[in-house]
Amino acid sequence: MNIKSKIGQRIRALRLQKGISQEQLALKAELDRTYMTSVENGKRNISIQNIEKIIKALETTFEEFFKGFDLIV
Amino acid sequence: MNIKSKIGQRIRALRLQKGISQEQLALKAELDRTYMTSVENGKRNISIQNIEKIIKALETTFEEFFKGFDLIV
Repeated sequence: MNIKSKIGQRIRALRLQKGISQEQLALKAELDRTYMTSVENGKRNISIQNIEKIIKALETTFEEFFKGFDLIV
Repeated sequence: MNIKSKIGQRIRALRLQKGISQEQLALKAELDRTYMTSVENGKRNISIQNIEKIIKALETTFEEFFKGFDLIV
Protein backbone atom coordinates (compact mmCIF):
# COMPACT_ATOMS: atom_id res chain seq x y z
CA MET A 1 0.00 0.00 0.00
CA ASN A 2 1.40 3.40 -0.88
CA ILE A 3 2.15 5.95 1.82
CA LYS A 4 -0.80 8.23 0.97
CA SER A 5 -3.23 5.33 1.43
CA LYS A 6 -1.51 4.20 4.64
CA ILE A 7 -1.86 7.68 6.15
CA GLY A 8 -5.51 7.89 5.08
CA GLN A 9 -6.29 4.47 6.54
CA ARG A 10 -4.58 5.34 9.83
CA ILE A 11 -6.47 8.63 10.17
CA ARG A 12 -9.79 6.93 9.41
CA ALA A 13 -9.14 4.13 11.95
CA LEU A 14 -8.27 6.62 14.71
CA ARG A 15 -11.21 8.86 13.80
CA LEU A 16 -13.66 5.95 13.95
CA GLN A 17 -12.12 4.85 17.26
CA LYS A 18 -12.98 8.33 18.58
CA GLY A 19 -16.47 8.05 17.10
CA ILE A 20 -16.35 11.34 15.21
CA SER A 21 -17.32 12.14 11.62
CA GLN A 22 -15.01 13.40 8.87
CA GLU A 23 -16.81 16.71 9.12
CA GLN A 24 -16.17 16.97 12.88
CA LEU A 25 -12.50 16.03 12.41
CA ALA A 26 -12.07 18.55 9.57
CA LEU A 27 -13.68 21.29 11.72
CA LYS A 28 -11.44 20.50 14.71
CA ALA A 29 -8.32 20.31 12.54
CA GLU A 30 -9.31 23.55 10.79
CA LEU A 31 -9.07 21.80 7.43
CA ASP A 32 -11.53 21.74 4.53
CA ARG A 33 -13.97 18.82 4.70
CA THR A 34 -13.45 17.76 1.08
CA TYR A 35 -9.68 17.89 1.64
CA MET A 36 -10.12 15.61 4.69
CA THR A 37 -12.16 13.17 2.59
CA SER A 38 -9.43 13.05 -0.07
CA VAL A 39 -6.74 12.52 2.61
CA GLU A 40 -8.66 9.57 4.09
CA ASN A 41 -9.11 8.19 0.55
CA GLY A 42 -5.34 8.17 0.08
CA LYS A 43 -5.39 10.85 -2.58
CA ARG A 44 -3.20 13.47 -0.87
CA ASN A 45 0.56 13.82 -0.45
CA ILE A 46 -0.21 15.47 2.86
CA SER A 47 2.23 17.91 4.45
CA ILE A 48 3.69 17.60 7.94
CA GLN A 49 1.81 20.71 9.12
CA ASN A 50 -1.54 19.20 8.10
CA ILE A 51 -0.59 15.86 9.67
CA GLU A 52 0.14 17.76 12.89
CA LYS A 53 -3.28 19.49 12.74
CA ILE A 54 -5.02 16.11 12.32
CA ILE A 55 -2.99 14.41 15.06
CA LYS A 56 -3.87 17.24 17.47
CA ALA A 57 -7.55 17.10 16.42
CA LEU A 58 -7.52 13.35 17.10
CA GLU A 59 -6.02 14.14 20.52
CA THR A 60 -3.17 11.72 19.99
CA THR A 61 0.61 12.04 19.54
CA PHE A 62 3.02 11.47 16.65
CA GLU A 63 4.46 8.50 18.56
CA GLU A 64 1.01 6.93 18.99
CA PHE A 65 -0.08 7.79 15.46
CA PHE A 66 2.94 6.02 13.90
CA LYS A 67 3.06 3.05 16.32
CA GLY A 68 2.75 -0.07 14.13
CA PHE A 69 2.44 2.15 11.06
CA ASP A 70 5.13 0.23 9.19
CA LEU A 71 3.12 -3.00 9.55
CA ILE A 72 0.21 -1.64 7.48
CA VAL A 73 0.45 -3.45 4.10
CA MET B 1 9.55 24.45 18.45
CA ASN B 2 7.47 24.37 15.31
CA ILE B 3 6.87 21.11 13.46
CA LYS B 4 9.15 21.96 10.51
CA SER B 5 12.09 22.54 12.89
CA LYS B 6 11.28 19.38 14.87
CA ILE B 7 11.33 17.26 11.71
CA GLY B 8 14.60 18.86 10.59
CA GLN B 9 16.22 18.29 13.97
CA ARG B 10 15.09 14.65 14.04
CA ILE B 11 16.44 13.96 10.53
CA ARG B 12 19.78 15.62 11.36
CA ALA B 13 20.13 13.64 14.61
CA LEU B 14 19.45 10.30 12.88
CA ARG B 15 21.72 11.21 9.95
CA LEU B 16 24.60 12.09 12.30
CA GLN B 17 23.98 8.86 14.24
CA LYS B 18 24.49 7.02 10.94
CA GLY B 19 27.60 9.09 10.24
CA ILE B 20 26.53 10.22 6.76
CA SER B 21 26.61 13.68 5.18
CA GLN B 22 23.60 15.68 3.96
CA GLU B 23 24.82 15.05 0.43
CA GLN B 24 24.94 11.26 0.96
CA LEU B 25 21.46 11.28 2.54
CA ALA B 26 20.05 13.42 -0.28
CA LEU B 27 21.56 11.08 -2.87
CA LYS B 28 20.16 7.96 -1.14
CA ALA B 29 16.74 9.58 -0.70
CA GLU B 30 16.79 10.76 -4.33
CA LEU B 31 16.16 14.33 -3.16
CA ASP B 32 17.95 17.56 -4.10
CA ARG B 33 20.84 18.39 -1.75
CA THR B 34 19.78 22.01 -1.24
CA TYR B 35 16.23 20.82 -0.50
CA MET B 36 17.65 18.43 2.12
CA THR B 37 19.59 21.29 3.70
CA SER B 38 16.45 23.42 3.93
CA VAL B 39 14.49 20.49 5.44
CA GLU B 40 17.14 20.00 8.14
CA ASN B 41 17.09 23.77 8.78
CA GLY B 42 13.36 23.60 9.48
CA LYS B 43 12.40 25.62 6.44
CA ARG B 44 10.20 23.05 4.66
CA ASN B 45 6.61 21.94 5.16
CA ILE B 46 7.75 18.54 3.98
CA SER B 47 5.31 16.08 2.39
CA ILE B 48 4.68 12.53 3.60
CA GLN B 49 6.20 11.08 0.42
CA ASN B 50 9.47 12.95 1.01
CA ILE B 51 9.45 11.96 4.70
CA GLU B 52 9.09 8.34 3.56
CA LYS B 53 12.07 8.71 1.18
CA ILE B 54 14.22 10.10 4.00
CA ILE B 55 13.11 7.47 6.52
CA LYS B 56 13.97 4.70 4.02
CA ALA B 57 17.33 6.36 3.22
CA LEU B 58 18.08 6.48 6.96
CA GLU B 59 17.21 2.77 7.09
CA THR B 60 14.76 3.31 9.93
CA THR B 61 10.96 3.03 10.31
CA PHE B 62 8.15 5.53 10.86
CA GLU B 63 7.66 4.05 14.35
CA GLU B 64 11.33 4.56 15.24
CA PHE B 65 11.52 7.97 13.58
CA PHE B 66 8.58 9.32 15.63
CA LYS B 67 9.46 7.59 18.94
CA GLY B 68 9.85 10.39 21.50
CA PHE B 69 9.14 12.95 18.78
CA ASP B 70 6.48 14.69 20.85
CA LEU B 71 9.04 15.36 23.61
CA ILE B 72 11.20 17.57 21.35
CA VAL B 73 10.58 21.14 22.55
